[in-house]
Amino acid sequence: MAENVENLGFKDLYPYNINGKAETRAFLLKVVSILLDYVDEENDRTSKILDFKMPEELEQILDLNLPDKGLPLGDLLKDCRSTLKWQVKTGHPHFFNQLSSGLDIVSLAGEWLTSVANTNMFTYEIAPVFILMENVVLKKMREYLGFVHGDSILAPGGSISNMYAVMGARHKMFPNYKKLGLKALPQLVMYTSVDSHYSAMGAAASCGLGTDNVIQIGTDSMGRMRVDKLEEAVLATKAKGHVPFFVNCTCGTTVVGAFDPINPIADLCQKYGMWLHIDAAWGGGVLLSKKHRHLMAGVERANSVTWNPHKLMGTHLQCSTIHFRQDGILLGCNQMCAEYLFQQDKHYDVSFDTGDKVPQCGRRNDIFKLWLMWRAKGTEGFEAHIDQLFDISQYLVKRIKEMPEKFHLIQEPEMVNVLFWYIPQRLRDQPQSKERIAELGRITAQLKARMMNTGTLMITYQPLRELPNFFRNIVSNSAVTKDDIDFLLAEMDRLGNDL
Amino acid sequence: MAENVENLGFKDLYPYNINGKAETRAFLLKVVSILLDYVDEENDRTSKILDFKMPEELEQILDLNLPDKGLPLGDLLKDCRSTLKWQVKTGHPHFFNQLSSGLDIVSLAGEWLTSVANTNMFTYEIAPVFILMENVVLKKMREYLGFVHGDSILAPGGSISNMYAVMGARHKMFPNYKKLGLKALPQLVMYTSVDSHYSAMGAAASCGLGTDNVIQIGTDSMGRMRVDKLEEAVLATKAKGHVPFFVNCTCGTTVVGAFDPINPIADLCQKYGMWLHIDAAWGGGVLLSKKHRHLMAGVERANSVTWNPHKLMGTHLQCSTIHFRQDGILLGCNQMCAEYLFQQDKHYDVSFDTGDKVPQCGRRNDIFKLWLMWRAKGTEGFEAHIDQLFDISQYLVKRIKEMPEKFHLIQEPEMVNVLFWYIPQRLRDQPQSKERIAELGRITAQLKARMMNTGTLMITYQPLRELPNFFRNIVSNSAVTKDDIDFLLAEMDRLGNDL
Repeated sequence: MAENVENLGFKDLYPYNINGKAETRAFLLKVVSILLDYVDEENDRTSKILDFKMPEELEQILDLNLPDKGLPLGDLLKDCRSTLKWQVKTGHPHFFNQLSSGLDIVSLAGEWLTSVANTNMFTYEIAPVFILMENVVLKKMREYLGFVHGDSILAPGGSISNMYAVMGARHKMFPNYKKLGLKALPQLVMYTSVDSHYSAMGAAASCGLGTDNVIQIGTDSMGRMRVDKLEEAVLATKAKGHVPFFVNCTCGTTVVGAFDPINPIADLCQKYGMWLHIDAAWGGGVLLSKKHRHLMAGVERANSVTWNPHKLMGTHLQCSTIHFRQDGILLGCNQMCAEYLFQQDKHYDVSFDTGDKVPQCGRRNDIFKLWLMWRAKGTEGFEAHIDQLFDISQYLVKRIKEMPEKFHLIQEPEMVNVLFWYIPQRLRDQPQSKERIAELGRITAQLKARMMNTGTLMITYQPLRELPNFFRNIVSNSAVTKDDIDFLLAEMDRLGNDL
Repeated sequence: MAENVENLGFKDLYPYNINGKAETRAFLLKVVSILLDYVDEENDRTSKILDFKMPEELEQILDLNLPDKGLPLGDLLKDCRSTLKWQVKTGHPHFFNQLSSGLDIVSLAGEWLTSVANTNMFTYEIAPVFILMENVVLKKMREYLGFVHGDSILAPGGSISNMYAVMGARHKMFPNYKKLGLKALPQLVMYTSVDSHYSAMGAAASCGLGTDNVIQIGTDSMGRMRVDKLEEAVLATKAKGHVPFFVNCTCGTTVVGAFDPINPIADLCQKYGMWLHIDAAWGGGVLLSKKHRHLMAGVERANSVTWNPHKLMGTHLQCSTIHFRQDGILLGCNQMCAEYLFQQDKHYDVSFDTGDKVPQCGRRNDIFKLWLMWRAKGTEGFEAHIDQLFDISQYLVKRIKEMPEKFHLIQEPEMVNVLFWYIPQRLRDQPQSKERIAELGRITAQLKARMMNTGTLMITYQPLRELPNFFRNIVSNSAVTKDDIDFLLAEMDRLGNDL
């Protein structure tokens, strides 16, 4: 019967049919077979990253309809195939588009187990092993931060982690806000660099501080927060009678990959009694590398740190962590003491129930995949991975500099973000000028569209301050080799030459 | 070579070894084999739900250590086995502990594909198929809500969905808050019932309103918000010069499963210009049942609705949706216009980029599993599932009533939450009294501890208002049969008889 699984329906599977063992296995193995084929294809450099269709076209191609009557399992298998056919292969070695890329097989195995275990991270009662794993991994990460005590939790993405930091800081400095709300407090003001991630603004909007009360501090030529400008802004806030309360120091800015200078910022935070948050969602992974951790010198002085293993460390999305140097803040800030969930008379130590530490109630298990990866790679494996990403990025920089007629490096990177323009044939003999730069910006978007339509390469682009569009290449996938970098440059030239 | 996968390491797999096809397949298939064994065991009613160990014991039993050097793949396979051995089987038919339970095999297949695709839901550029699926499923859900237009998004859990509703309401009523923050607004006040989920309080704390500005409205004997009390509270707020702004109407309270009366609450919201939010995280699934959707009559009058498919509909955790009757609120509320992510000069219609609608930046793909389930079951399959959960719950009620000496039903359920005490031998002849009720409460926690230690049954308990601890049984797993209910009652009696 299991051979004819295509003709069966969901009722032939567990849990609807308790005798459906063979059918359940046969169906899941057929799904796995489709998935393994996709993984093979994704790792085949001759395959396309995507077969791009406009939304309107793709809506026509796919059968997305939600039927009244269920479809046979064979149709679901077709659905799986066609979903993957039209999806973008984010693990393809020529996908340089996002901070998160790659497909780590051990992390994948971790996700598969996670979904079989299908539990909620709010109590030890229903997630005993995973709660303990979370404790072990987060403690290890705090060691890399230099936090001797402290407390941490996983959050659904870096933006929410940053929001938890704002909430934690507010609670620590003004424990009354939880009851009374912001109207009872003085006007609080946050600081973040102009190059920082938009979630600092988002947190201010969400938490009710208002985006006008986030002061954006200018950056130096490398994209790092200017500490002199920060102090000026703090003094201006104080002159207005407002309260400087939170500095968001970015380690690894989204576009440039710049590291704000932690120590001088920490000095100012100390001087003016401000909370120091480090948004190392992107850069945090450097802490695992002896060679590169100097970029975050002073991190142990932070009050809180966001660090996303789903970025530089290659864990599956999502896996984001937020750490506090001091214990008890998460619980103090978020605890609502719902007796129906966090009974205090349980027969085990209820401090293992983490649910009251976050505004989330249901919390997905994002820890197992990271724990399993750490077992597989060891700390040394993570270090080698990070170092390799930096090395390959430096190779890209070197190659770009060797071809100044075709590529223009915008600045020396601190991290694996490499920023550049591609220069098509017709602009190669022109001297650099405002007009030429504007034209390179226009070409950037056109070349990206060609990449998407050809499906051989994906690199993102964006403007930044006075600069028009330029490419931002990211190497965050251990699959990427120097040959892939050579391909990247040659392919851009092939596609963009005549623009 | 693939046969000796135990001795290999992560470097023999993709993407580290591009020739690692056989090894990658062999490793993943071995993981899958472990997972399939677990699924079989979970569906075997003679297996234990858990083998409970105290945290300190479990820390000794498990090897959770994060090594410096990576371990061979064989060790990872052992890790997978031991993780599952000590995990709680939330899909076991005798696990009645949480609102989310069961292990739907199609949803599981969806999760496996999701993790292979490993993408981020913020742009059409990198998640084309999944963005279209999200549109289709959310539109379908809005049809069940009676929202002709409107807008929706998936969020990391119901608490965050509820927070998005507060933020949306605040933005719609006071568009300036985003810039100016709450200090520039009048004091806003929210209303929610005493039986509602703690996330209403949590949202008020997180968003900066303050929990003192959430007025908890009393409930009737069935646990439903008292509309007369709500109006009294609104008038009291106005008398203080504060602004009544948001009513959280719960459809399916956490403990009781009660449905606040939507229409009279909507009348008050209209009368006083308040936002009507419906927290149907738990109850939303009833909309799919012709027989039970009357419980949510009037839902089309809501301004926003939270509805978690990961609860009553049996989708994997997490899968939570938030819907707005009016379009544009999510974007207006959360848009930060980060040009590095949401370029406006892309070559496709950027209204398909959903990232700027939420405070999250990275957003996990929670839609595919639900879409695939809907294909498998059809709307009719969901309806049959919901109706069955109600039927089985009613069977439990009937059986409890047939054994008044052993079980005491606390109230008639509106939903699948069945609330009761177990009565041990020594208390059976005593008439009901305050002391006896207090004793039944104490016995509840003791019996739960015995369940955990025996591993044959899991049902949660909690106090509620003046009532001491009692059991709250949840049937949300399609696997549960009347025989399982008979087992539940017999097993409680076996374990608790002598308490």
